[in-house]
Amino acid sequence: MNIPQSTRVAIIGAGPSGLLLGQLLHRAGIDNVIIERQTGEYVLGRIRAGVIEQTTADALERAGVATRMHREGLLHDGYELCIDGQRHRIDLARLTGGKHVTVYGQTEITRDLMEARATEGLPTVYEAQGVSIHDFGSAHPEVRFTKDGVQHTLACDFIAGCDGFHGVCRASVPAGAHRTFEKIYPFGWLGVLADVPPVSDELIYVKSPRGFALCSMRSHTRSRYYLQCSLDNKVEQWSDEEFWAELRRRLDPAAAESLVTGASIEKSIAPLRSFVTEPMRFGRLFLAGDAAHIVPPTGAKGLNLAASDVSYLAEALDAWYNTHSEEGLARYSERALARIWKAERFSWWFTSLMHNFPENAGFGQKMQEAELDYLLHSEPAQATMAENYVGLPM
Amino acid sequence: MNIPQSTRVAIIGAGPSGLLLGQLLHRAGIDNVIIERQTGEYVLGRIRAGVIEQTTADALERAGVATRMHREGLLHDGYELCIDGQRHRIDLARLTGGKHVTVYGQTEITRDLMEARATEGLPTVYEAQGVSIHDFGSAHPEVRFTKDGVQHTLACDFIAGCDGFHGVCRASVPAGAHRTFEKIYPFGWLGVLADVPPVSDELIYVKSPRGFALCSMRSHTRSRYYLQCSLDNKVEQWSDEEFWAELRRRLDPAAAESLVTGASIEKSIAPLRSFVTEPMRFGRLFLAGDAAHIVPPTGAKGLNLAASDVSYLAEALDAWYNTHSEEGLARYSERALARIWKAERFSWWFTSLMHNFPENAGFGQKMQEAELDYLLHSEPAQATMAENYVGLPM
Repeated sequence: MNIPQSTRVAIIGAGPSGLLLGQLLHRAGIDNVIIERQTGEYVLGRIRAGVIEQTTADALERAGVATRMHREGLLHDGYELCIDGQRHRIDLARLTGGKHVTVYGQTEITRDLMEARATEGLPTVYEAQGVSIHDFGSAHPEVRFTKDGVQHTLACDFIAGCDGFHGVCRASVPAGAHRTFEKIYPFGWLGVLADVPPVSDELIYVKSPRGFALCSMRSHTRSRYYLQCSLDNKVEQWSDEEFWAELRRRLDPAAAESLVTGASIEKSIAPLRSFVTEPMRFGRLFLAGDAAHIVPPTGAKGLNLAASDVSYLAEALDAWYNTHSEEGLARYSERALARIWKAERFSWWFTSLMHNFPENAGFGQKMQEAELDYLLHSEPAQATMAENYVGLPM
Repeated sequence: MNIPQSTRVAIIGAGPSGLLLGQLLHRAGIDNVIIERQTGEYVLGRIRAGVIEQTTADALERAGVATRMHREGLLHDGYELCIDGQRHRIDLARLTGGKHVTVYGQTEITRDLMEARATEGLPTVYEAQGVSIHDFGSAHPEVRFTKDGVQHTLACDFIAGCDGFHGVCRASVPAGAHRTFEKIYPFGWLGVLADVPPVSDELIYVKSPRGFALCSMRSHTRSRYYLQCSLDNKVEQWSDEEFWAELRRRLDPAAAESLVTGASIEKSIAPLRSFVTEPMRFGRLFLAGDAAHIVPPTGAKGLNLAASDVSYLAEALDAWYNTHSEEGLARYSERALARIWKAERFSWWFTSLMHNFPENAGFGQKMQEAELDYLLHSEPAQATMAENYVGLPM
């Protein structure tokens, strides 16, 4: 592949944010190049969420990559809360007037987007080394990187920072130009992926005296399970047998009995973090997705927020190029953040509600119990949970 | 008055909990004596909340003391939130399917209950000194006290501890027999009562960069206003002029302009506390109201919880005496606490939402702002607030 020397939008990062933005821009007739420091296989190897809001499904539709999701994705009309061994169903469809979510792995979305990009012949530079971004305070930003030992400079109109929490884009913003907000939770999630049928047709969010657990799935034959664990746990400490035994202890008796176990095909521990940077625009650099914000995985908002960010950004760039309107770009940060903070709130609330907090004793724990008791008995409380779960309007 | 030497239920405390319990028991044909260490005038001088839930109005109805409340109380179908100078109405009637609250001062309820008790000639011992309770672990409890220099012993079947947070009843329970839960808030409420017409027909809960304020009323001609203040403030530091000036700064421009001010007839600073003791029954001693739990005043749940406690207790004692059923007494603590914890949760949430917390910076403050933004734009979120405000079902 010839590496272009200029483009309209340089996208840093070939994860789902960058790939979706590239596809949306291409459909609006806007040239773009994606620069990624890893290989495509590495990107596909990252296991992430798999609960898709309607607004995300709509964005994938607009990007022309929804066919396989519609065919293979599972429509979920509800999920269950298992509180101290008792299951309660949250009926999303009834509580939201017919809305649902789609269970379809982030890996599959990434694959669909990569294939669409390859089919269209759009330029993606994988294994770009030493990526740096320059002059985004001016009308002529540049991206520099090395590929196969050769130094390249990509001139562009705009840079989209879709390079994740540890990426170069946010790190390139002067310290005084933004403010960050962060909360670190005192536990992690130990996740296991296994080719076994899921224990239930719907997700089960579990709160037990031993901690949180989540029963989720990628398909009818592939399951994804999580356990709240101590932050000092190492993956090597957890054999498959120990994982399944601990999961059984946290489930209700019926689920524990019907759980089908098998060899893990992936096992990892992730810390839980809430993080937001404000603003998300710095001249001609726009941050999107994990580059600007992280949610704890409870509620599965990470990918969905990335999709709404790049939807706002693609719409704004479309308006700039095709109708010469600057308003969308001017309002990008504000619009994206309004939705992000609501999802941060929901993710923080749902995380706080369902986990055991080592420091939470006395009044704080009683508030958690009262909130659960209220939620399980109040129709309006369940409706607030449901409307956030299916995704607030754009 | 001859002081009785025995009764069925000895009620400690002649505040609204004790008086309402006495009236409900009397209507069920159950003799009771109230022992109060203050004068009746002192009790009436305590200024407290004035927002009455329907379940409380129902209890006053059952006690036969609702006539003046129905005549003079103000029916409120909604209230306003004033957030950073912008007012938003919470339409209680629409959000709850037609429910409302009644604005009628606790002092007036106490007066109505005192008059009813006097009319019926039921025994109340005011200015009882050195009150102590004994043998509530047995079937023959006793209350001892001194009145006009003479020592008295009141034998009874049951003791109802309606003597408030600082009373003798909870203090008489052995330390190992109960557990307490507490949260102290880092601010207080400075309250002013004044004979001026209220600034608005409905209550206004105000969150401003300078702190919380509340515009409430007792009638069309008597207003009750509050300001969040520092805990080290003294009432003497606040002249009436300074109070009104600070209130104006926290209100929206229209309210600030139409505020009618006047001389205060009461001014006080109250700390904010969440407190619950578990259980609420110890043999033949039953705690009710502030003796067992305190809520911060945001949301006005204190009197309403006292009313639901004594409603459960009166029903249980009625069953015990009149149908020989022990179940109500056995379940009293559990039933009362289920409702109390939900009201504690709501009061803590509403307090946390509307006040400035000195220690709250960064992520915590952003969660507060996101919660407000969500609340003001979500119908289900407003419905949860409304159903708690009008009072959850018994």
